[in-house]
Amino acid sequence: MAGKKTWFIPDGFLPPKSTGDQISHEAVCVLNLGKEDAHIKLTFYFEDRNPMDRFQSVCGAERTHHIRLDQLKDREGQLIPVGVSYAIKVESSVPVIVQHSRLDTTQEALALFTTMAYSEE
Amino acid sequence: MAGKKTWFIPDGFLPPKSTGDQISHEAVCVLNLGKEDAHIKLTFYFEDRNPMDRFQSVCGAERTHHIRLDQLKDREGQLIPVGVSYAIKVESSVPVIVQHSRLDTTQEALALFTTMAYSEE
Amino acid sequence: MAGKKTWFIPDGFLPPKSTGDQISHEAVCVLNLGKEDAHIKLTFYFEDRNPMDRFQSVCGAERTHHIRLDQLKDREGQLIPVGVSYAIKVESSVPVIVQHSRLDTTQEALALFTTMAYSEE
Amino acid sequence: MAGKKTWFIPDGFLPPKSTGDQISHEAVCVLNLGKEDAHIKLTFYFEDRNPMDRFQSVCGAERTHHIRLDQLKDREGQLIPVGVSYAIKVESSVPVIVQHSRLDTTQEALALFTTMAYSEE
Repeated sequence: MAGKKTWFIPDGFLPPKSTGDQISHEAVCVLNLGKEDAHIKLTFYFEDRNPMDRFQSVCGAERTHHIRLDQLKDREGQLIPVGVSYAIKVESSVPVIVQHSRLDTTQEALALFTTMAYSEE
Repeated sequence: MAGKKTWFIPDGFLPPKSTGDQISHEAVCVLNLGKEDAHIKLTFYFEDRNPMDRFQSVCGAERTHHIRLDQLKDREGQLIPVGVSYAIKVESSVPVIVQHSRLDTTQEALALFTTMAYSEE
Repeated sequence: MAGKKTWFIPDGFLPPKSTGDQISHEAVCVLNLGKEDAHIKLTFYFEDRNPMDRFQSVCGAERTHHIRLDQLKDREGQLIPVGVSYAIKVESSVPVIVQHSRLDTTQEALALFTTMAYSEE
Repeated sequence: MAGKKTWFIPDGFLPPKSTGDQISHEAVCVLNLGKEDAHIKLTFYFEDRNPMDRFQSVCGAERTHHIRLDQLKDREGQLIPVGVSYAIKVESSVPVIVQHSRLDTTQEALALFTTMAYSEE
């Protein structure tokens, strides 16, 4: 089954501001081509503090899940801090494919970016 | 001949809204360097429903085809649903190279993103 | 020396319209880490016509060259057509690294996208 | 430990103009998954002059560092020139993962782009 179990995204950032109807956010977009659910663990790395490693999600078999990072909570109900640079490690119980995108509406109009995440398995 | 037969794009989304002259859309951009036409099959994966796998297209020999996902219809005339997160599998009869782009004019002004699709053949 | 001699970019398009001070354009960005000039040949593939293969450029030793596709002319003085979907093959005499970017000012404000080009040497 | 020691980014450019609250800039985003600090050396390649190779930075163990290229100074206090096309080589003492992004607020509203850097180790 196509995919990898570990992916990395160095450029993470949740813009603290939004304008218009759309909320600034990031999404970790997971594609699970297999017949088993993918149990996903997310670790966030920062510039000036220890990593946060208690975030989890699930992507069903033959499903995609676009994990909204502005809404994801860890086991203790903590959100990812906004307005702070971070990086992301994505670990899955089964092979998946991961892409990372940001929608930024800090200033008038919106901006988007995306890239395939990095894996070297 | 350079290229792969199978490509994946986890972050698909057709924005339901457009402003200005340009229609929000996505394109699966195919480059076929070979001497034979590429017969393309597209499968769409969702968060909450079964995959749709009856979409087809063609990219001629030594041609490119930028497949507009807002206009593509399957055998029964169905369009890809708008405003819904999806992921894409692209399968070709011959090796091709695939890039995916989105044009979003939901808010004033436009936003663009692109990435090479993922393949591991 | 890091790099490859052949690169591909499926999603090419020169927006026919610009607003504000900046001209809509694309650039094929070449990095030549070696001690010899890179002689670059560019081929453009279309949806509905034969490829155009008479475009050339040079990137000096230990230099970068961001080749503006809206200004590039072939041997007969021809420009790349605007408002038409195309794909690009980049061939270099020595290994180089290639990234492709678009600046789109069709609507108010500007939009940008970029991706590393594809190579499989 | 996942990562590579050498990365390349052909499309670098610091927009000379900004509008609104946000300053146009680029960032080289480094993720260091290891237990040792990463000592980073950055070399900038130009179209019409010799490379500048005296820029340094550090990314702590199990930390990310989003190196702002509009603020980075070399040993002699020099900044990277604005409004000039360049390319980047990133060399690290330990394996890291590198992504490159630009925020452009030259015209009203903002534009973003990103890509994983290129490595072939």
